Amino acid sequence: MGPDFRSRVKNLQIIMKRKKLDAVLISDNNDVLYYTGYSEMSDEKCMLLVTIGDDPLLMVSPLRNGVTEDFENAVLLGRPKDLLNVIKPYKTIGFDEGKMSARTFIFLHKNRVKLVPSSALIKKPMIIKEPYEIDQIRKALKITREVLHNTPIWNRKEIDVARNIKIQFLRHGVEPSFEPIVASGRNTSFVHHKPGEKIIKLDDIVLLDMGCIYNGYRSDITRMFCRRPNRQQKQILSDLKKVYMGILKSVRNGVSVKKIDDTQRNVFKKFGYKERHRFGHSVGLSVHEEIGPKIKENMVITIEPGLYLKNDIGARLENMILIKNKGSPDTLSKF
Amino acid sequence: MGPDFRSRVKNLQIIMKRKKLDAVLISDNNDVLYYTGYSEMSDEKCMLLVTIGDDPLLMVSPLRNGVTEDFENAVLLGRPKDLLNVIKPYKTIGFDEGKMSARTFIFLHKNRVKLVPSSALIKKPMIIKEPYEIDQIRKALKITREVLHNTPIWNRKEIDVARNIKIQFLRHGVEPSFEPIVASGRNTSFVHHKPGEKIIKLDDIVLLDMGCIYNGYRSDITRMFCRRPNRQQKQILSDLKKVYMGILKSVRNGVSVKKIDDTQRNVFKKFGYKERHRFGHSVGLSVHEEIGPKIKENMVITIEPGLYLKNDIGARLENMILIKNKGSPDTLSKF
Repeated sequence: MGPDFRSRVKNLQIIMKRKKLDAVLISDNNDVLYYTGYSEMSDEKCMLLVTIGDDPLLMVSPLRNGVTEDFENAVLLGRPKDLLNVIKPYKTIGFDEGKMSARTFIFLHKNRVKLVPSSALIKKPMIIKEPYEIDQIRKALKITREVLHNTPIWNRKEIDVARNIKIQFLRHGVEPSFEPIVASGRNTSFVHHKPGEKIIKLDDIVLLDMGCIYNGYRSDITRMFCRRPNRQQKQILSDLKKVYMGILKSVRNGVSVKKIDDTQRNVFKKFGYKERHRFGHSVGLSVHEEIGPKIKENMVITIEPGLYLKNDIGARLENMILIKNKGSPDTLSKF
Repeated sequence: MGPDFRSRVKNLQIIMKRKKLDAVLISDNNDVLYYTGYSEMSDEKCMLLVTIGDDPLLMVSPLRNGVTEDFENAVLLGRPKDLLNVIKPYKTIGFDEGKMSARTFIFLHKNRVKLVPSSALIKKPMIIKEPYEIDQIRKALKITREVLHNTPIWNRKEIDVARNIKIQFLRHGVEPSFEPIVASGRNTSFVHHKPGEKIIKLDDIVLLDMGCIYNGYRSDITRMFCRRPNRQQKQILSDLKKVYMGILKSVRNGVSVKKIDDTQRNVFKKFGYKERHRFGHSVGLSVHEEIGPKIKENMVITIEPGLYLKNDIGARLENMILIKNKGSPDTLSKF
């Protein structure tokens, strides 16, 4: 069964009432997709106005003039003045402060629109995944596994491996969910390395961080490769497994995110590594979603500890896990 | 010869002095590339602080910790507070109001940073292209022509044709400069149609709008295909050529953009079409750059009239042209 957009909007309206917001202006295409099913072109920006009483109003660029024919309650919106007219009837308006540009904010503010930063509020309902959503994520992961297993890496340039991953995703009829990271040798010591001209050698340690978008839902995994690990490479890969298991054990329904942060910090200390980023993030229509203060049932999050030795090598393992009501989470990316 | 980043920064500093700006905060990755040569990963955001006296300071995410090793004058910048510390010494700061988020703007504003919207000022020097830049655009167009000529369109789904274009670009070692538009039949009556499941039939009129990125520089062209044009299709394609030529004739060094706007409006009226978008835009490191008030030598702009018959068919022709000192512009996309 597909998503029930009406009930998603209703949930948002309940939160809006509690926060005394007359309307909420959504500016993230992924959020618009969540609340309406409308999937905008990736190069175009659209907005959604959710009010307490009426059906949500979709606002698209005048260049997207086909949309108003396919979609009920859609308008073409060109000038900032048009936006002003649309939101004029509403007194207190929540907005996505991370997505709205300073230009639009300044314009609305000057025209006395009462704006309340509401990014977290808009995105909050998206963190707990419905069965349909978990299913899409599983399908994205299935394709990711396929592509991962069919990606040749040795004796090739990092950039060519990254391109090959993208081509494979496109051949599977999906898009990459972000630019694949392909790092080898010393480049693995950086968290996000931009794949370059370096040729991946047979004695290199190699990091692949990749994912795709299936029906809007994203996958995100990281895997390490090492053909003939030397002592140092063996050590870091063995430490990584232990660090990962140490963190995973602390991830349960009801646990606070702060506590997992603490666990990661302690495990890193125990193994003698410096912490360079947090333990993970939620994944759904966006590749990086805030988890919130507490781990809850049916969240889909990543666990991705990374060990980085300055000017040397690094290693990261990233899985997507599904939080269960009781007991340990399901690892969705078991490959 | 490659770009002279120092002289580009100097030009910006001259404008800054005139506008009494102590510093300018650049938030568009393409603009950072223009002023420094630093090409950020497409999923990451970076910033550049240009001041009157010092060398520009590059600010990247802590996840991009490799950058500070390769690039002089680069810092890792995580929290908004870090940004505040960096810009504290400067009194009046220009910023890119189209790229900075409302969140960052509100934070800086609350901390009494004096911010001046300066998007146009930052981007202005980029509109006149250097010989090196024109060369890169020519190379992007060369690949675009190759791909265009090797794209099978008939009896395939629009979405599959779009994917095939992207795969071809990747195989050429370049990225698409935007999501290719593939529209057929009635879908050509919309300006930006999202390629879908519709199968392109042999009697359809077909629109392809596509381009790629070569060394950061972009191409952007639109071509029509029609195998066995019926009377209506013949008519619109013949009108399109005439409309295009009518507009092109008015594009010369020194002419005001408003005058070309007027010309397009008049030509459209003469042929009985409704104007749905402007005649074109500048192209460079970004696919859509503002032209400014006047056409000048060494601008690279598109001319792209589009004729759209509501609920019927449409047609658009888009070329990239180089403005010459005297006489008619060079059409860079002669294919």
